[in-house]
Parts: sequence; structure tokens; C-alpha cells
Amino acid sequence: MPGEETRTGTAHSRRGFLKAAALGSAAAVVAPETAAGQAPPGRRLGAGVGPYGERSGFETALRRVRGSRYDQAAGSLTPLQDLNGTITPSALHFERHHAGIPDIDPSAHRLLVDGLVDRPLVFSMDDLRRMPAVTRVYFVECSGNGRVKWSPAAPDTDVQAAFGMTSCSEWTGVPVSVLLREAGVRSDAAWLVAEGADACRMTRSVPLDKALDDTLVAYGQNGEALRPAQGYPLRLLIPGWEGNISIKWLRRLRVVDRSYLTREETSKYTDLMPNGEARQYTFAMDAKSVITRPSGGQRLAGPGFQQISGLAWSGRGRVARVEVSTDGGRSWTAARLQDPVLPLAHTRFRLDWRWNGSETVLASRCIDETGDVQPTRAALIAVRGTRSSYHNNAIQGWRIARDGAVENVDV
Amino acid sequence: MPGEETRTGTAHSRRGFLKAAALGSAAAVVAPETAAGQAPPGRRLGAGVGPYGERSGFETALRRVRGSRYDQAAGSLTPLQDLNGTITPSALHFERHHAGIPDIDPSAHRLLVDGLVDRPLVFSMDDLRRMPAVTRVYFVECSGNGRVKWSPAAPDTDVQAAFGMTSCSEWTGVPVSVLLREAGVRSDAAWLVAEGADACRMTRSVPLDKALDDTLVAYGQNGEALRPAQGYPLRLLIPGWEGNISIKWLRRLRVVDRSYLTREETSKYTDLMPNGEARQYTFAMDAKSVITRPSGGQRLAGPGFQQISGLAWSGRGRVARVEVSTDGGRSWTAARLQDPVLPLAHTRFRLDWRWNGSETVLASRCIDETGDVQPTRAALIAVRGTRSSYHNNAIQGWRIARDGAVENVDV
Repeated sequence: MPGEETRTGTAHSRRGFLKAAALGSAAAVVAPETAAGQAPPGRRLGAGVGPYGERSGFETALRRVRGSRYDQAAGSLTPLQDLNGTITPSALHFERHHAGIPDIDPSAHRLLVDGLVDRPLVFSMDDLRRMPAVTRVYFVECSGNGRVKWSPAAPDTDVQAAFGMTSCSEWTGVPVSVLLREAGVRSDAAWLVAEGADACRMTRSVPLDKALDDTLVAYGQNGEALRPAQGYPLRLLIPGWEGNISIKWLRRLRVVDRSYLTREETSKYTDLMPNGEARQYTFAMDAKSVITRPSGGQRLAGPGFQQISGLAWSGRGRVARVEVSTDGGRSWTAARLQDPVLPLAHTRFRLDWRWNGSETVLASRCIDETGDVQPTRAALIAVRGTRSSYHNNAIQGWRIARDGAVENVDV
Repeated sequence: MPGEETRTGTAHSRRGFLKAAALGSAAAVVAPETAAGQAPPGRRLGAGVGPYGERSGFETALRRVRGSRYDQAAGSLTPLQDLNGTITPSALHFERHHAGIPDIDPSAHRLLVDGLVDRPLVFSMDDLRRMPAVTRVYFVECSGNGRVKWSPAAPDTDVQAAFGMTSCSEWTGVPVSVLLREAGVRSDAAWLVAEGADACRMTRSVPLDKALDDTLVAYGQNGEALRPAQGYPLRLLIPGWEGNISIKWLRRLRVVDRSYLTREETSKYTDLMPNGEARQYTFAMDAKSVITRPSGGQRLAGPGFQQISGLAWSGRGRVARVEVSTDGGRSWTAARLQDPVLPLAHTRFRLDWRWNGSETVLASRCIDETGDVQPTRAALIAVRGTRSSYHNNAIQGWRIARDGAVENVDV
């Protein structure tokens, strides 16, 4: 079974690694008399308490805006290389908008549920907050995440550029199943059409089975209200599926009998196969992982102990196993998975490693509970060709040069 | 076993409740022809993407500063009534400082491990980031949280005032056990003395057993670096124990043979019992819970369906069960616990309820996995007297008036 080892067991098994590491470069050994001289803190009073906290001025992690003619139809990328754990700070959640972020007054916002229902209903935000809620940790990933991997690796592509269109939050909201049971779904219903309140009225068709399974109308993100860029005050949250279908600024769920074949499921969010046919309705995100530390653009300080750390996820269930290679894919070792391993959520993996100072390539591959295995780029292209834009889950490699510099490489 | 019911089961069992509720006041039933007229969104482009997100201008939840002569030696309170789920947004994590928040450059910060060790060691932040890390969700609670409950209930005390000195985050850091094994603990060692880099050099003694069990030196909070008010760039994180001992801005761990009887474990953070003796080293926070919605200062819109929601936690392990009373404590019903139920973390509980419009009192009580049961205020005072400041875990009541107004009341 994957999962973090018990604390005692972990510490014990690491002992050999660490003793050597500390005596090398992971910490300075100091004589007791000089130890006491470690930079003493000042005696000036610091800043006082306040109503809303900000991060330290020394922290500079930012989303990177992807080039676009219009910022309203652009994306921004989560700096995965700078993050710890599994939760993405809401301020750094990736963005992808098609007509900008509307400024919505929640007291005026309504959700309409209509179409093939017994009773069309309109919900205010106050109505929704009184209803049965659930809280779950889910990733949201743009299906275009990893798009750069359709081309051969550019050495200076870092993890933010290649993988920054995925983020993970604790979402709170009302199951769609609860709303639809209230409205009463008619027997000829088979899909939902979800519509956003942004200027383009972003619209997607959702199979009714998934909507009734685990889909939420979410109003909470990481404890507070949704951030405007993630759909404030209300969004659809379709766990594990490509982000575009989790309609933000949700204003309407229309129950219908068929897919409405919107722009987002015909000319966009489909992938051309080598035979000229297109993959359509490729909803679930495939098993994926990436090492975030060390990763492209970083530099190892020198040989010695270095814990390898990264994220893995799958749109089909729990991460069952993450394997890490420190020799360019010749051999693979199971990494530890940080518990709790939650379905359809980012899972942090870690592997203790001792770099001997010679050039090598690091890589990771995810295996999910359905047996889906993250493929090499060559294996993926052998099936899919190179005319796709979306759903690339190829293995990511990071070359470590002898001077410790880390750069992007295909594995 | 506690835990969220399966989705299907939950939805099914709620059906009766909800059908009636929706047809009452939880949503408006609309005729199909008027439904389509639900306020249409504008067609103006919204705001563009950007490097760092902020919350909506319509969101106004703030920490409330507790009265103090000096903001540097004050506290601020988390607005639990405004939050969803279990994670506290870092910007709203409660504060309690004794000499203000120092402004620390992480590149200059060092952690010294010395005292009864074989090898005194100094760690830079870069050293620590290379070492084996773990990520865990833990609450941090001031032992003075609930202090107002030593006095009879003031009607206008809300949940932020009474319970706002607890917050819950996803923390990432290095186990203290790893650092101490590197340094080599001598056989005569029994305690640690942890020292902060704030102007008062906040200092606490920590039993070595707890330090070696689950204590971290944490640098990550909710995915990003610690916030300055929570110890940036490094803090001790002693899970489940009173917040004061989790020394912020950590600069030194000195291994010693006995408690150093600092101010914080003698004149402060001790409680006088009726017989004149003081309780000392009352480290673990007791089993506690509070209903956050509805709670003091809120007003129910009217009779009908209203899901009751709150938080429970214990410093001794997992929450095993939360019971809710809707009749002032005469009868109790088990609430649903949101999974995953993690040890030493806030646990969200929920109970479906239908208010009939008459005056009543809501209350909750937590039972943890050790069997610790949250007591009534009268039962607590019968043992502890009223000369304490800390460690009050009495049951919280909320009176619902016939007009829907909610106010503080003893149960």
C-alpha cells in the first residue's frame, strides 16, 4: 500500500542517509562556543496585529501570464516550483479566462435550474448556503496543461511553464444531485448545459451521470469565498475533468436531452488524431506527475543529500503509486506518498536521494488506482501523433548538470 | 464509525427534507417563461489575468483585534462564522504576539541546534529545504481561546469573540526528530528549549518525547511560505498543544535536561485551581466544538430547512463523534463528520435541520478518540473553579429567537 510511513519508521530508516548528509553539506557543524554567537535577533518591537494578513516582502512567487493579445482571454500559471504541500494558495491558482473576470455582486447573483425538470428553481447565494454542503479537496487542471510537451523539450522550459495550469484547493459547495432532486429531473433528461455569467457566457454540456455523481456548485475555496478568478461567487466543480467544463461564475444549469455541441466541445477542447478523426469529450484528466524540486531553472548547491519532491494526480481516482528515476529512466523507485491520499486531488510524493555530483536525469511517473500509467513522450506520440493541443500527460525529465543546473529534457 | 456518508446514501436520505425545504423557502419556484428572464449577465469584458490574486471587494471577513494597549502584544481573532470547510485562509489565521512580528530575511536566518548534543548544528533555510519533509494539516489554538466562557454568557458574544483563537492550516516542514538525530542527542537529555527571534525571544520548554514524536520545524503554510504573523520563515509546530509553545520565528533548539520554567510556563499559561494550587504544563488542547452557522449575531431568514455546520477538534487525537442538540441539550443527535477526519485538525461537522420557527437553543459537543467529552460550563467550573484563564472547553449554546436572531447562551 502506498502512503507515508509511520513517523518512527521513517525517521529510523533515514538515519544513515542523514547522518552522512549533515556531516557533508546539509548543515554546518559548529563548535559549542561559536554556536551561541549565531546572529542574535534585535530587540526592537515588530509589527502589530491586523485584520488581514499579507505574505512577507521576501516572498516573490507569482503566477506567470502566458502570452496573449488580450489579458481577458489569456492564462496565468501556478509557480509549482515555489510551493509546498498539496494546497495551492488561492492567490496563485492558475487562471484561464475567455472573456475576463466579471465583477459579480453576490447578493444579486442567482442560479437558475431549468429545462427538463418538474419545477424550475432559482437559488440565491443565501438559499445555497442553507442547503446541505460538502467540502472536498480537488485539483482543477486545464486540459491544455503540458501542451509544450507536444514539441521536443526546450532546455529552459521550467515546471511553471510546462505544468502550471493545475492547482488544488479545498472546495465547499452543494452537490448538483441535491439541486436536481429538488427540481425533479424528467425521464428524458441525459445532459446538463452549464452557463457562466462572464461576457462570453461560457457554456459546456455535462453528462447527467457525472453531474449526479460528484459534481458540486461550489462557493467556498480554501476556507473563504471563491476568488473572483475562480468563479466568484459560484462555480461548477466537476472533479477530475478538464478545467474548462467546471463553468465559473455559474448562472444556469439547464437539463437537456443531448450534448449541445458548444464551441468548447467542437472547435476547441478536441484533439486531432493521426487518421484525421478528432477525440471529443475527453473529459477525465490522465494520470500525471512532475518533480517540482529540483526542477528546471533551479540549481543544486552541490553533491549530497537532496530530497526529491513533486506532485502527482489523476482524474480517474486516487494516485496508487509514483515511481521516480534518478538515472534517466533506466531504473525506478517507489516514492513515499504524503497521506491522506485523496481521490482527484494533488498528491505530494517524496524520495530521499543523494546526488553524487555527476550528470544525470530525474523523472517521475504516476500510476493511478485504475492502472493508468503515465507514458513516455514517445509512447504517447506513437498513439496520438503530434496534431493535438490537449491532454498530454507525458513523463517529465529534468537533467542535472555537473554544476547542479537543472534543465528540461525528454525522457 | 464517524465519517461522511456515501454520496448516494446522503442524497437519498435527504430527499424528504429537501423537497419540502425547496418548496418552502430554500429556493424560488419559477415558471419556465419567467425563468429565462433571470438577470442576464452583461457583455462587457471582465478583468484580465494577473500575477497574484485578491479576493472580491464584496468579501469583507476580517480578523478582529482584541483590545490591548499595544498592538505588538495583542491578538486577533479568526472570523469562524464566515469560513467554509476546514482550512483557515492564511490571511485570516488568528494572531497572538508578545513583541510584534519581526521582519526576517530568510537568506540570513539560521536555526541553531545545540545543548546536550554530540554535534551542534546550524541550518540555513536552504539546508532545511533539502531535508526530508512532511506535510500535515493541524490546528493551532491559543490556550486562552474560550476564555470568555469563564464568565456567564454575554448575549452579544459571537463565535469570533469566543472561539476565534483557533485556526487550521496545511503545514510543511522537517520533523524535529530528523534534526535531533543529525545532532545526536545525549543520554541525559529530557527537554528542548525553543527560542524565537522576536524582540522578547519567546522561549518555551518542550518535553523531548513530544519533540521526537510529531513536532515539526515548519516553513510552509497552505502551500506557500509561512505568513509573517505565523513565524516566517520558520516556526516550531507542536501538534495539538497550546499555541504558545509552537515558537514562531524559531532560531534555536537547545537540548537540555529539565524544563527551564520560563515566564510562559509559570506566571502565564498556568491555571489556578480552587484549592490554590496551579495546573502547570497543560499542553494538550481539550476536545472542543462550536456551531459556526447559525451562530451569534446571525439571523435565520425564516422557518424551514437550515443545515447546521460547525468545527470540532481535539489536541489528543481524532474527533470520534460530534453530537448536536437543537433543544437546548435535552436530546443529542450525531452530526456527519466531513472526511477525511484527520488527527489534531479541525473537523467540519454538519447536521440537516428544519427550524419550526419557535425559540430554541442549539449546541454541540465533541467526543474525541480517547473518549474525552466536551463538558457543560457548569461541569467544568465544578472541577476547575473560575480562577482560570486558559483551557476552557465548555459547550457553546446559541439561542434562536422567534424572529431568527441568534445570541450567545450557556447550556
